[in-house]
Amino acid sequence: MIMDNQGISIEGASCPIPLSHNEQIVMGHGSGGKMTHDLIRNIFLLAFGHSTPFPGDDGAIIRLPEAQHSDYRIVISTDSHVVTPLFFPGGDIGRLAVCGTVNDVSMMGAKPLYMTAGFILEEGLEISTLIKIVNSMQSAAEEAGIQIIAGDTKVVQKGKADGIYINTTGVGIRSYAHEIGGACAQPGDKLILSGSIGDHGMAVLSARGELGFASEITSDVAPLNHLVESMLIASSEIHVLRDPTRGGLATTLNEIAMQSEVSITINEESIPVHPAVQSVSEMLGFDPLYIANEGKLLAIVSPTDADQVLNAMHYDIYGTGAVIIGEVEKRGTGRVLLRTTIGTHRVIGMLSGEMLPRIC
Amino acid sequence: MIMDNQGISIEGASCPIPLSHNEQIVMGHGSGGKMTHDLIRNIFLLAFGHSTPFPGDDGAIIRLPEAQHSDYRIVISTDSHVVTPLFFPGGDIGRLAVCGTVNDVSMMGAKPLYMTAGFILEEGLEISTLIKIVNSMQSAAEEAGIQIIAGDTKVVQKGKADGIYINTTGVGIRSYAHEIGGACAQPGDKLILSGSIGDHGMAVLSARGELGFASEITSDVAPLNHLVESMLIASSEIHVLRDPTRGGLATTLNEIAMQSEVSITINEESIPVHPAVQSVSEMLGFDPLYIANEGKLLAIVSPTDADQVLNAMHYDIYGTGAVIIGEVEKRGTGRVLLRTTIGTHRVIGMLSGEMLPRIC
Repeated sequence: MIMDNQGISIEGASCPIPLSHNEQIVMGHGSGGKMTHDLIRNIFLLAFGHSTPFPGDDGAIIRLPEAQHSDYRIVISTDSHVVTPLFFPGGDIGRLAVCGTVNDVSMMGAKPLYMTAGFILEEGLEISTLIKIVNSMQSAAEEAGIQIIAGDTKVVQKGKADGIYINTTGVGIRSYAHEIGGACAQPGDKLILSGSIGDHGMAVLSARGELGFASEITSDVAPLNHLVESMLIASSEIHVLRDPTRGGLATTLNEIAMQSEVSITINEESIPVHPAVQSVSEMLGFDPLYIANEGKLLAIVSPTDADQVLNAMHYDIYGTGAVIIGEVEKRGTGRVLLRTTIGTHRVIGMLSGEMLPRIC
Repeated sequence: MIMDNQGISIEGASCPIPLSHNEQIVMGHGSGGKMTHDLIRNIFLLAFGHSTPFPGDDGAIIRLPEAQHSDYRIVISTDSHVVTPLFFPGGDIGRLAVCGTVNDVSMMGAKPLYMTAGFILEEGLEISTLIKIVNSMQSAAEEAGIQIIAGDTKVVQKGKADGIYINTTGVGIRSYAHEIGGACAQPGDKLILSGSIGDHGMAVLSARGELGFASEITSDVAPLNHLVESMLIASSEIHVLRDPTRGGLATTLNEIAMQSEVSITINEESIPVHPAVQSVSEMLGFDPLYIANEGKLLAIVSPTDADQVLNAMHYDIYGTGAVIIGEVEKRGTGRVLLRTTIGTHRVIGMLSGEMLPRIC
């Protein structure tokens, strides 16, 4: 039995910061930021018998005994979805559950093929709501070209869930030739972002009626596997692929900087943010760099291939807004710097605490 | 892309009964019995684009493109766990989450290798409780000889879950030579049960303090993969393997009778029930045939091989109590008959409604 990645992969598990001594779970443990990392490192990775280094990638890679000499590897990723409300502009928990896992498998450089779905239903959930959600799952699965092959249903009493929670676990295959992962960023590499940031988190917030006014912001939730496939055809020099979900682009960049032990610089003026997202963020005191996305990816690519990857992305519906936003600087610091529009530099940390709970 | 099983596998999805027109989810939809089947058939299978026949087995079998000519298949199964209370005599939600999925993969005739774990944590959960649970998961994983390779953590507000819910998805391999499934029972086959029934459900009930008195009943929750491995070495004529969890032995037998289109007879006097389970059941008006087990399996085996399978089982710690409890009668009826101790026959249906909610 061989595992390529020498251990467990729990999404976002790369932060070497000790667990703060909270005695109870608080909402911040689900933020995807620093507290989530601490929880994973100090409880899950410890219990499941894995020590550093942690890959911290979006899924795990396995090689089955009968395929020892094959070039293919199986990639597996799991995600539970607890978004509230269940329906929001541009999507719903069903589309989110399928796309979230399709994207995690894709970010491992793999082609997602199959998915399982585990439902936890709250007593009193309208059957018509459930039907809308599973139809939306199937529609997203068809768009991605994957099959939902196994499932499970549990029901809990009223007040013991929030309508419906969905776990999806995805299985895909990847060619071993492509070495892609959060630890593979190289000095000199270019950072490509597939489009605008902050749309998903702000759309969910607006659906909660918490803005106090109507907004035209729509979630970007989408399956990115076809986009990734085009990129992998365009170049064999893609070193990192990651979807900046919980914790936003800033947290994702910090994870990669730590995993690859490099310093990363991004340019504020090159990062696309929809005007509505920008203005709502300013009003509420949010930084779009920390807001979740569900249909965007970050690629870190050899400078020689950056343009051809960018070109390939522009042909895909989910990559038309792709731009280069920065570069990998040098070994060692694990630091992320933002070059502001006025030319100064500012260190961008990982999300700490909880900003927008239950956005995925 | 080839799928051996012609469609989706949702645990317990073989019942051709139309959905009752409930407008809302009720606890009975999670019973594992008739209502669960109706929900799966009328909503999930319909939405995910699969028509009859439904395999209704514990997992799905896939063959990856590069392994078209290989004898091996990959088996995947998923389960969410919502048991209450989190700790009960003989086990806890962590051990249950690992064993439940190990067993589902094993019942497909496969050797479980890897598992993912998705956690939904309620704000306010004691960190010390979480640590106990994940340690118990790891201990069960070690006993089964599998690795927990990927995970995910979400946190919901107080009152939106019940401490902790855990989804586990298991991956295993099986040799194509063994054709095992709920649809493979043959007239003349013997039914082997690995031990006493009703222990798990009654242990959980007693942990809830709902009995009104103390009991010595202990859950049977255990990983059965090593037992299954011995059985598969002993015989290539094992036609069906199934763990009678939600809905109990009676529901499992009905599922198999329908999938295989056979009639099944079991002998009341040969079915082992612990005296404590028997007496508590009688007091509360429960039938042990419908109570959940988490460390028992039912095997349906060619009559020529029944004794050697039984012998192999007796050597395994979880098979010492294995006995032959009945036989497959004939094609066509899909009916399960109980031969009572006084020699009469009684039809045993699938669990209808909800008996013991949230026992797994």
